[in-house]
Amino acid sequence: MKTRRVPVITLLTDFGTADYFVGAVKGAILSVNPAAVIADITHEIPPQDVETAAFTLLAAYETFPPGTIHFAVVDPGVGSTRRPIIVKAGRSLFVGPDNGLFTYVYDREPAHQTFHITAEKYFRPSPSTTFHGRDIFAPVAAALSKGVKAEAFGPLITDEVRLPTSLTPRIIHIDRFGNCVTNITRALFDNAQHPTLVIKRKVIDTFVDFYSAAPPNTLFAIWGSAGFLEISVNGSSAAKMLGAKRGDAVILKPQKGT
Amino acid sequence: MKTRRVPVITLLTDFGTADYFVGAVKGAILSVNPAAVIADITHEIPPQDVETAAFTLLAAYETFPPGTIHFAVVDPGVGSTRRPIIVKAGRSLFVGPDNGLFTYVYDREPAHQTFHITAEKYFRPSPSTTFHGRDIFAPVAAALSKGVKAEAFGPLITDEVRLPTSLTPRIIHIDRFGNCVTNITRALFDNAQHPTLVIKRKVIDTFVDFYSAAPPNTLFAIWGSAGFLEISVNGSSAAKMLGAKRGDAVILKPQKGT
Amino acid sequence: MKTRRVPVITLLTDFGTADYFVGAVKGAILSVNPAAVIADITHEIPPQDVETAAFTLLAAYETFPPGTIHFAVVDPGVGSTRRPIIVKAGRSLFVGPDNGLFTYVYDREPAHQTFHITAEKYFRPSPSTTFHGRDIFAPVAAALSKGVKAEAFGPLITDEVRLPTSLTPRIIHIDRFGNCVTNITRALFDNAQHPTLVIKRKVIDTFVDFYSAAPPNTLFAIWGSAGFLEISVNGSSAAKMLGAKRGDAVILKPQKGT
Repeated sequence: MKTRRVPVITLLTDFGTADYFVGAVKGAILSVNPAAVIADITHEIPPQDVETAAFTLLAAYETFPPGTIHFAVVDPGVGSTRRPIIVKAGRSLFVGPDNGLFTYVYDREPAHQTFHITAEKYFRPSPSTTFHGRDIFAPVAAALSKGVKAEAFGPLITDEVRLPTSLTPRIIHIDRFGNCVTNITRALFDNAQHPTLVIKRKVIDTFVDFYSAAPPNTLFAIWGSAGFLEISVNGSSAAKMLGAKRGDAVILKPQKGT
Repeated sequence: MKTRRVPVITLLTDFGTADYFVGAVKGAILSVNPAAVIADITHEIPPQDVETAAFTLLAAYETFPPGTIHFAVVDPGVGSTRRPIIVKAGRSLFVGPDNGLFTYVYDREPAHQTFHITAEKYFRPSPSTTFHGRDIFAPVAAALSKGVKAEAFGPLITDEVRLPTSLTPRIIHIDRFGNCVTNITRALFDNAQHPTLVIKRKVIDTFVDFYSAAPPNTLFAIWGSAGFLEISVNGSSAAKMLGAKRGDAVILKPQKGT
Repeated sequence: MKTRRVPVITLLTDFGTADYFVGAVKGAILSVNPAAVIADITHEIPPQDVETAAFTLLAAYETFPPGTIHFAVVDPGVGSTRRPIIVKAGRSLFVGPDNGLFTYVYDREPAHQTFHITAEKYFRPSPSTTFHGRDIFAPVAAALSKGVKAEAFGPLITDEVRLPTSLTPRIIHIDRFGNCVTNITRALFDNAQHPTLVIKRKVIDTFVDFYSAAPPNTLFAIWGSAGFLEISVNGSSAAKMLGAKRGDAVILKPQKGT
């Protein structure tokens, strides 16, 4: 079987799936490169929530094959002076607004390069001021998928916008199952150590390797599939049980040996 | 890189994404043409809301490449005598029920042709009476994508069903961000004029070119990406602030020069 | 036009579409087989609801072309000793956890074969204990799509887990439109018979062939597109009108000739 060489273009937006926005982006991509292979990551980022977009992109992008182009558009500043950019990072390319969306990618890929998209010949004719996803980012992503180099779209920049990061342990995401994803990574621990957590005044000192290993109705910590420590309950929502929301502080007590 | 020649088939329905309906349509298409390229526009049209479907299709279809086949099925009359049709309009093809769904396409493409689908040999065997999306429209769209001409499916008709249209300015759509899309187009104005609007007794006389140019918490008018005048608030929902819903009247006072 | 030979991989999960989960699965598939054609069936199975997943898969899989690989992952036991399996059934392949998800497929395809996936060389490196969808099922599905035989992944088993089935007539699914799908099939009736139903103490003795043939505001029975008897109301939700939910008993009185 011959392997298709066309790169994948992933889509990650806050456009929702009820409007024409996602369809218009797909059409704009396919109009430039009818052979493009489009894979939706999500369009359900909460409106204008750049931080959730940044986390979701981080957790998804590395599973895609080399050469994948990630179209990531959560863009409260659309039409203003915020820059449209391309990021070359590791084996991947990213296209979107320069508003911090790629912060975690920058952290994970320190040798990345960022280009300010200025070459208007790659835009749709008469781009709107309200929908750069369709009129700028989509045709640029499609041009990249046809082999145009990132360098061709504009100058290298080094002052990319980053989200304010904080080393304070906290919840950075709550998923569909109510798992509370923290920003705590394994790098903070010896292999032999399991953390004890305190969140919303509840002590969490159960640590398990898989969900159904936990006793019922018990909050536990687990290394999640995105590489971060998560707080979960088997068969129920930890977020509900804790009354937790994104941003809530987590107190970390590394103490228990395995 | 060789460009794929297979036309895109877009899907626009009120099927939702929680049931088996969309999967069954995709399967029915791929069974006829395994090489078909399927692009979801949306499946979140409110159940049986033909008018929203018509607007969403209008706003999305022109971005797709020539030859694209738009499968659009919001079909309260499924199984009754309402006709299944193919519309050839501009560089696009449309497949769906003859219930007004293509009204805005007819308006934009006056030279369109409409065919009543009667050639049962293109249907799935023993089509159900409740799911023509799967049993009639999907295999017809797939046959079109393999190169069968629209003329082969049945006779030309000229009495297509249209939505009752009204020139009264009003809100025709509210999007995920709470933007209120009106049916007001630029054709109503000189280039030098910016309209003042009154909606729900509120006067809207701020007009901006992009969202973040507007002062905070201020309702403003803006030319939206679908080509219509929209009422918006930067970073918030205009629909909520106005208590507006689809169908609400808009009073138009064209008066302010730029 | 040359027909693409690459099999389709469908996705059916309870992952939702707001998180990174679906994106990660698509990436993991495309990393193994960049030519894979992915078709979403649904990701909106209620969390951990194996029975709804089993019904939805049943209703969708047969429309897909021969050789299609169905990735179906609703997996409360992820990381525990529940077995990952491949099912060869009819012209289709299924990949997922051995927790009853394929019960209805087993019933419809008695000559199926089930393989316990044990060949770790097809897994992603260092698979997580919480996301086998990405780390085990996705690369296995992708390997199948490249032509690896089901037999290569592990031993044949015959003690697959099945959902407790019951011949008691009941509602097994409520769809987006409020139609109540029962587990009653045509096999129970002569061609000449139409059933009368009693549900929630309401007698339903109207039987129609298509939705818009029914009088307004009247509950009626209809043979649905998934092959089961459904209870519906034209233009409204039968589930709401009945206050019905999944699992509710249906009393069946086969009596009315046509």
